[in-house]
Amino acid sequence: MSLSLAQFPQIQSKIDEAAGELISLGKFYHQRGWCMGTSGNFSVVLETEPLLMLVTASGRDKSSLTRSDFTVVDQHGMAVMPDAPKPSAETLLHITAAQQAGAGAVLHTHSVWSTVLSQRHFDRGYLDIEGFEMLKGLSGITTHETKVSVPIFDNAQDITEFSKLVSGRFKEDAGNMRHSYMIRKHGMHCWGKDLSEAKRHVEIMEFLLEAVGRLEGGQ
Amino acid sequence: MSLSLAQFPQIQSKIDEAAGELISLGKFYHQRGWCMGTSGNFSVVLETEPLLMLVTASGRDKSSLTRSDFTVVDQHGMAVMPDAPKPSAETLLHITAAQQAGAGAVLHTHSVWSTVLSQRHFDRGYLDIEGFEMLKGLSGITTHETKVSVPIFDNAQDITEFSKLVSGRFKEDAGNMRHSYMIRKHGMHCWGKDLSEAKRHVEIMEFLLEAVGRLEGGQ
Amino acid sequence: MSLSLAQFPQIQSKIDEAAGELISLGKFYHQRGWCMGTSGNFSVVLETEPLLMLVTASGRDKSSLTRSDFTVVDQHGMAVMPDAPKPSAETLLHITAAQQAGAGAVLHTHSVWSTVLSQRHFDRGYLDIEGFEMLKGLSGITTHETKVSVPIFDNAQDITEFSKLVSGRFKEDAGNMRHSYMIRKHGMHCWGKDLSEAKRHVEIMEFLLEAVGRLEGGQ
Amino acid sequence: MSLSLAQFPQIQSKIDEAAGELISLGKFYHQRGWCMGTSGNFSVVLETEPLLMLVTASGRDKSSLTRSDFTVVDQHGMAVMPDAPKPSAETLLHITAAQQAGAGAVLHTHSVWSTVLSQRHFDRGYLDIEGFEMLKGLSGITTHETKVSVPIFDNAQDITEFSKLVSGRFKEDAGNMRHSYMIRKHGMHCWGKDLSEAKRHVEIMEFLLEAVGRLEGGQ
Repeated sequence: MSLSLAQFPQIQSKIDEAAGELISLGKFYHQRGWCMGTSGNFSVVLETEPLLMLVTASGRDKSSLTRSDFTVVDQHGMAVMPDAPKPSAETLLHITAAQQAGAGAVLHTHSVWSTVLSQRHFDRGYLDIEGFEMLKGLSGITTHETKVSVPIFDNAQDITEFSKLVSGRFKEDAGNMRHSYMIRKHGMHCWGKDLSEAKRHVEIMEFLLEAVGRLEGGQ
Repeated sequence: MSLSLAQFPQIQSKIDEAAGELISLGKFYHQRGWCMGTSGNFSVVLETEPLLMLVTASGRDKSSLTRSDFTVVDQHGMAVMPDAPKPSAETLLHITAAQQAGAGAVLHTHSVWSTVLSQRHFDRGYLDIEGFEMLKGLSGITTHETKVSVPIFDNAQDITEFSKLVSGRFKEDAGNMRHSYMIRKHGMHCWGKDLSEAKRHVEIMEFLLEAVGRLEGGQ
Repeated sequence: MSLSLAQFPQIQSKIDEAAGELISLGKFYHQRGWCMGTSGNFSVVLETEPLLMLVTASGRDKSSLTRSDFTVVDQHGMAVMPDAPKPSAETLLHITAAQQAGAGAVLHTHSVWSTVLSQRHFDRGYLDIEGFEMLKGLSGITTHETKVSVPIFDNAQDITEFSKLVSGRFKEDAGNMRHSYMIRKHGMHCWGKDLSEAKRHVEIMEFLLEAVGRLEGGQ
Repeated sequence: MSLSLAQFPQIQSKIDEAAGELISLGKFYHQRGWCMGTSGNFSVVLETEPLLMLVTASGRDKSSLTRSDFTVVDQHGMAVMPDAPKPSAETLLHITAAQQAGAGAVLHTHSVWSTVLSQRHFDRGYLDIEGFEMLKGLSGITTHETKVSVPIFDNAQDITEFSKLVSGRFKEDAGNMRHSYMIRKHGMHCWGKDLSEAKRHVEIMEFLLEAVGRLEGGQ
């Protein structure tokens, strides 16, 4: 599918709004050390039928994103406009979360704590987070008396294969694929029904990772 | 009680001033990681007879509060204006501190260190902080040669019941309920006779928690 | 001595310049957590014969200092202008450093790491810092192959007595009282021949304390 | 060689651009604690035949660099303009990276983590970093399934001798001298084909050092 955005005049304002918010978010995440050295990538769903997502272009400095650092992709992760910059290499993971979990926005942060804990707990396959009030900031959770088991995937280079694996987990392990997952030594993916919820999930999860990491001690 | 603020013209300027200060404070606390993901809530007493408090509305992002993210509540925690946003779920805890400790402002921060230490010391019921010069920044303390025992409550979901429990502790354990308490894996409540003092108590306590946490080691 | 600043027109520009720099420095230190909750105090020597120092007034929030948060004191630590705000309670320590070490500026920071390390090494009386390149940022040190032993005093409430003790150490232990000392669980005092050097010493020492603290492990 | 910049009108715009970027970078690095107390130094290659580099002048505060805090040096590290400020004492290390590794920009940061890890792993001579996705942010690395061994040199005061030693290592140990090296208790040198790549390498390496340091525990 190769389309001109002129065919989608109605989404131009959505693009402008989403890009503006992601530009601010990039500055904040970079300041916190969550997307250093061009790491991290962000997306927002523009249309669902057919799927159109705004994603950060590949290899951009998240501290100083501009409107030209985004591209619109279809459900196959292909840029819909011929002259658009190349989408992030991990675009298929964003599409998978949109398709399988109904995400309206997907945020991949690459923080020190998610890198550390995804390694430390890799053998168990999950990081258990239990009994924290902050868990109530995750959608659908109404009491701190709960346990969230964040899936940890092994890192991979073949994103097409990896996105299929993740897609399968959304179906088979839906109870644990509700808000986020980690990739070993490769950070975290969070999502939400819209960008506001995805942002909240990122802050909640990064907080919880630091709290869990410090409670574990030894770092 | 359902009142129009038009009945309280004299408090409008107090509301404007308090909201302005809490908006700045929210940005600073968010930057320090003390109220991530809509956590934390703040209040200022506007009138004492009858009690009227300005509190942050439920579920707002503290990094970008605006004037519409606050609401005025009475001594029962009910919004006094019909179209006002829903007050924070923890409003009764703010009212309890105002009523039992004469607080003029109450600040609930949700930092990593208060989360970590409230868990680590939960079984003892108190976190002892002793011999630090910074303790003199807490009202009524004039020497570092003192020990402050910060009460740690178990976390709870029924805020009405919990606020009664906290209210009782203000009476029975007044000596330790002077500036702050922690809730297990749920951060800290600080207060002061006015917002300036409450802000100072937050900074003092967060500093002391980090210092105690690092001295304990293992995190 | 009670004087009007009108008698010192020539120092008004020095006051304005020093206050401006200390206002900026207060914001930066507060952001780094080095003077939370009104802790910390700063001074600059205005005249040496007789001694006149600009010092921060007692109990001010260092994140938002204004011109009215400073006062000018004489060699006894007394405010020279009748309506001036009360000088910091620790003013005599600033005067001692000016008199005994020829300091042109004295900066007392109250960071977590100086609080932690002044406690951890208190029994030895000194914190040894050895072999770091950063040591060369301290005046008079030209090689990293050196050891700096930072004196650690016990905390005290009687500042007059304490300043005499510190004054004595400047004479008896001059080799170790060159750039800074720590007070147990009460932060650090740094100084320099002028404000620029004192600022550099603060940054160097705070860096070294964090590096030493992390190398020691356990926090 | 002593030249007037008037002989190089064509490089004036390069100087202006590079200085502007380094001024911003200095503010950011200082805020992160990577160049406290005048530590750190930065350079950009202006011409290669003959070599001309823009370097930060000796002893400047990196939080507030101005256009006058830079100087242009030739391949011997000598300032090419008679009235220019003295170049950083470590200028020869920048020149060595430009000559031996074809660097277009060299950034020496002096962070706590590089100071800590260069000491902790000094006896082994290298810090091994393996299996992190972030490694792919280093030029020429296309998979996380790799190990980067960052050379650690002993610290030295004779920069001329030391730069010869480093120069030799670029020849003999080229496989490990690709992006960065550390100096014991003296931070890190990173470089890249241009300033953008060098900046990315700094952020990647500082991230990895913190992650490795926390995974090792004990600090």
